[in-house]
Amino acid sequence: MSAAKGTGFLGGLPHAGGGASFRAVDPATGDRIGPEFSSWTPAEVAEAARSARAAFEANRGLPERWQAGLLRDIADRLAARRDDIVATARAETGIGTARLEGELLRTRNQLLGFADVVERADFGEPLHDAADPESTPPRPDLRRVLVPVGPVAVFGASNFPLAFSVAGGDTASALAAGCPVLAKAHPAHPATSELAGACVAEAVEARGAHPGTFALVQDAGTEAGSALVQAPEVRAVGFTGSFAGGRALTALAAARPRPIPVFAEMGSLNPLFVTAAASGRRLDAIVEGFAASMTFGCGQLCTKPGLVLTSAGREFATRAAALLDRVDPAPLLNEGTFAAFEASRHVPGVEVVTADRPRSGSGFTAAPVLLLATLDDLRREPALLEEHFGPFAVVVDVDGDDDLLTAARLLPGSLTATVHSEPEDAEALRPLVAELTELAGRLVHNGFPTGVSVSGAQTHGGPFPATSDSAHTSVGWTAVRRFQRPVTFQDFPEPLLPPVLRTPRP
Amino acid sequence: MSAAKGTGFLGGLPHAGGGASFRAVDPATGDRIGPEFSSWTPAEVAEAARSARAAFEANRGLPERWQAGLLRDIADRLAARRDDIVATARAETGIGTARLEGELLRTRNQLLGFADVVERADFGEPLHDAADPESTPPRPDLRRVLVPVGPVAVFGASNFPLAFSVAGGDTASALAAGCPVLAKAHPAHPATSELAGACVAEAVEARGAHPGTFALVQDAGTEAGSALVQAPEVRAVGFTGSFAGGRALTALAAARPRPIPVFAEMGSLNPLFVTAAASGRRLDAIVEGFAASMTFGCGQLCTKPGLVLTSAGREFATRAAALLDRVDPAPLLNEGTFAAFEASRHVPGVEVVTADRPRSGSGFTAAPVLLLATLDDLRREPALLEEHFGPFAVVVDVDGDDDLLTAARLLPGSLTATVHSEPEDAEALRPLVAELTELAGRLVHNGFPTGVSVSGAQTHGGPFPATSDSAHTSVGWTAVRRFQRPVTFQDFPEPLLPPVLRTPRP
Repeated sequence: MSAAKGTGFLGGLPHAGGGASFRAVDPATGDRIGPEFSSWTPAEVAEAARSARAAFEANRGLPERWQAGLLRDIADRLAARRDDIVATARAETGIGTARLEGELLRTRNQLLGFADVVERADFGEPLHDAADPESTPPRPDLRRVLVPVGPVAVFGASNFPLAFSVAGGDTASALAAGCPVLAKAHPAHPATSELAGACVAEAVEARGAHPGTFALVQDAGTEAGSALVQAPEVRAVGFTGSFAGGRALTALAAARPRPIPVFAEMGSLNPLFVTAAASGRRLDAIVEGFAASMTFGCGQLCTKPGLVLTSAGREFATRAAALLDRVDPAPLLNEGTFAAFEASRHVPGVEVVTADRPRSGSGFTAAPVLLLATLDDLRREPALLEEHFGPFAVVVDVDGDDDLLTAARLLPGSLTATVHSEPEDAEALRPLVAELTELAGRLVHNGFPTGVSVSGAQTHGGPFPATSDSAHTSVGWTAVRRFQRPVTFQDFPEPLLPPVLRTPRP
Repeated sequence: MSAAKGTGFLGGLPHAGGGASFRAVDPATGDRIGPEFSSWTPAEVAEAARSARAAFEANRGLPERWQAGLLRDIADRLAARRDDIVATARAETGIGTARLEGELLRTRNQLLGFADVVERADFGEPLHDAADPESTPPRPDLRRVLVPVGPVAVFGASNFPLAFSVAGGDTASALAAGCPVLAKAHPAHPATSELAGACVAEAVEARGAHPGTFALVQDAGTEAGSALVQAPEVRAVGFTGSFAGGRALTALAAARPRPIPVFAEMGSLNPLFVTAAASGRRLDAIVEGFAASMTFGCGQLCTKPGLVLTSAGREFATRAAALLDRVDPAPLLNEGTFAAFEASRHVPGVEVVTADRPRSGSGFTAAPVLLLATLDDLRREPALLEEHFGPFAVVVDVDGDDDLLTAARLLPGSLTATVHSEPEDAEALRPLVAELTELAGRLVHNGFPTGVSVSGAQTHGGPFPATSDSAHTSVGWTAVRRFQRPVTFQDFPEPLLPPVLRTPRP
């Protein structure tokens, strides 16, 4: 029995919106479940934004690096309520319990990791150029540090109800920067969002931060989210979701009197290139890894390999189809994803190699689909160059390894690109690797793209349309950089400098 | 006699555009001077962009950190042609010889400094997380580095014909990142641009880089610049100029099928706050420094202090006017700047405290103008919150030090904010300093904002409308970050890694 009551959070307290009511849907059955939620009105969003601004100013009075304690407190509360959160997320998303337990652990560790980052000596990337009166022209004393941008709006993703949602990576990195967070719950998992939001709101109170430091906005539609992006107090937006959603928010943000950046992760093909040497030596292992990666999380991961390019295309597709046809159908996240998935298999002139299984069970249950296409199909059919959520992928049968580079040049920006090759391929592969460096934020060798480690050297980002800003990552410790800006203090007296910039006592 | 022939550069060679012809204007006389230039057509811009893309790919074959040698070569060529460049810039801009010689030295040192940055061990901010098979889930080997984004379009500024123009900071930082540069000459100094462009084009050839590594586009209008921002090969834009110009380019860039970032520095009020204690103790010194800073470069620096806020407002304005009325009129950069300057003094209900001197001489010559306003005027008159180019400033007479914070909250984002205070002000000043940290990219204490050191800890940037992206600086070594993006290599074999990410030999 979930502790969720059907609320968001405003000013530190549970808050039910004044708009239309809605409920979650169990994707395994299509039934409405859980408490009744109500959408927030634009006026309620505006109040939350003003409170976030007040928090941003009030929190200046907290001890330096106060965010670290807050992040750890949230992590502890998430862990303490694990069972309720996982059960609620399971009901709202259809994702398996083991994966959700792993995701909760990841979310907790992510918060703890950002807390450690905040306490590093180099947090905020401080730089100091001492005065040099002898230079031409004379140089003043310059000290620079990254400061928080201000309140940040975070849009939770449908496919990771914990790690990329209310207490997920965007929230953790924005709080780590020192920014208040206005989180918009994904309407497909409002109760999970409420439970995670309660952990954040309670931690904010326990750590003595201003109650406006965190708000959780509930909305079944787009009105509250639009109001969030347009609120004058909001200084940046983090978003994980569809291309259409990301583009709509980016346009809203650019049209503000004072434009703000939107860090939108929008969708990715995650192409997988297999050389002739690699397919010749270990095709079965690659096919097996691919099938597991493509169907993990029912194919609803943003790093799902959606496109395979290899001169062993037909053999690859045949063997993969044999594996995929034995995968049990599983529920997709929601009705919209299901409808799009059902449509994705129909590409004119392109062969479906998986079996046409009858739809089994109720709800939004789907079996894997694999297509076999040619390079000409790829040139001809824009649908093959778009991300399709769910257990869906396309194998492109190319004429030889040289065509891997030809194909790469046709592809849109991606979060990842994967290469399977053998040592003897190295010299010939250089042009392809150079091209893929242009194409993606993470290059994987002889592995599979699903599974995104949260660490310092991670890049979960990539060229448009994978994200709206390829200069940043949304996973890993440098994700905090999205919510910071540099400020330089010239010839400032020690008492007026931020503590991190003061001259260390000997 | 200038060596300029009336060309830009395309594919490494001098190139005269196929469009309408134009000439520079001597701002001291209004006469047309120098050779005839011709605007580039969109087709010529498209050819330059394709060549830049080809260069980006071809330059991958150059030795690692090849850019350092190129930057030093450009610096040497600028220094060798100093006399011709300075004389040409003097004729085209009306800026004094001493300032231009200083600007050339700054431009040269800036190129040399970026060359050193390229050769630092931490260039590209490499990060390495070793594989950890024991962690849950197991972590692969992750190595991350910043890579160049691709061809960059650079728009030269009118007010710094060398340091913020063809071979200036944007070009130096883009080349340092490894990006080809498509420079758009400012039409007010086409011959100066040609001479600087020749230094870059010749250095590109001498260092064996692809000739598309640099192009210089000439255009009297906006068509070629628009084509540059829309060229599919261009990946980022650097711009220093007007608010209207920056906004137009930003809109064009956002409307592309694949949007790109525009790093536009657009204009800044650079407010100067003077506490009662500071004005009581050293008003004359502050007024003197202000008058010098405000009129330096004929008030055409983006860091000109355009607004003074102090409870000693009337006294400040009276003493400043006495100094400013003794400053010799000097030519503004061009006809447009002159017309805007002439209009700026007329603000309804606001007193002009400088003498109404008759216009002296021909051309675009202007004498300093100072206004004295109240906090109510500031609330009422949007013109007082806009940058006005030229030797123009507004003193706001406030009721007491508390009103400094009130005034700060009314101001738009700025490149700089300056505080003059005494040690006993420190405690009371904290809220103002916190507010100014939100307002500007650089905070100056007991000094003046003009003079922007090129160094590591510099921030020449700030919140909108000062720039289009407050996360970056356009001056100093971290300016290179605008033209880089992170890429992570997961479990990559050493031979396929970028050299900087390979495991060091013991």
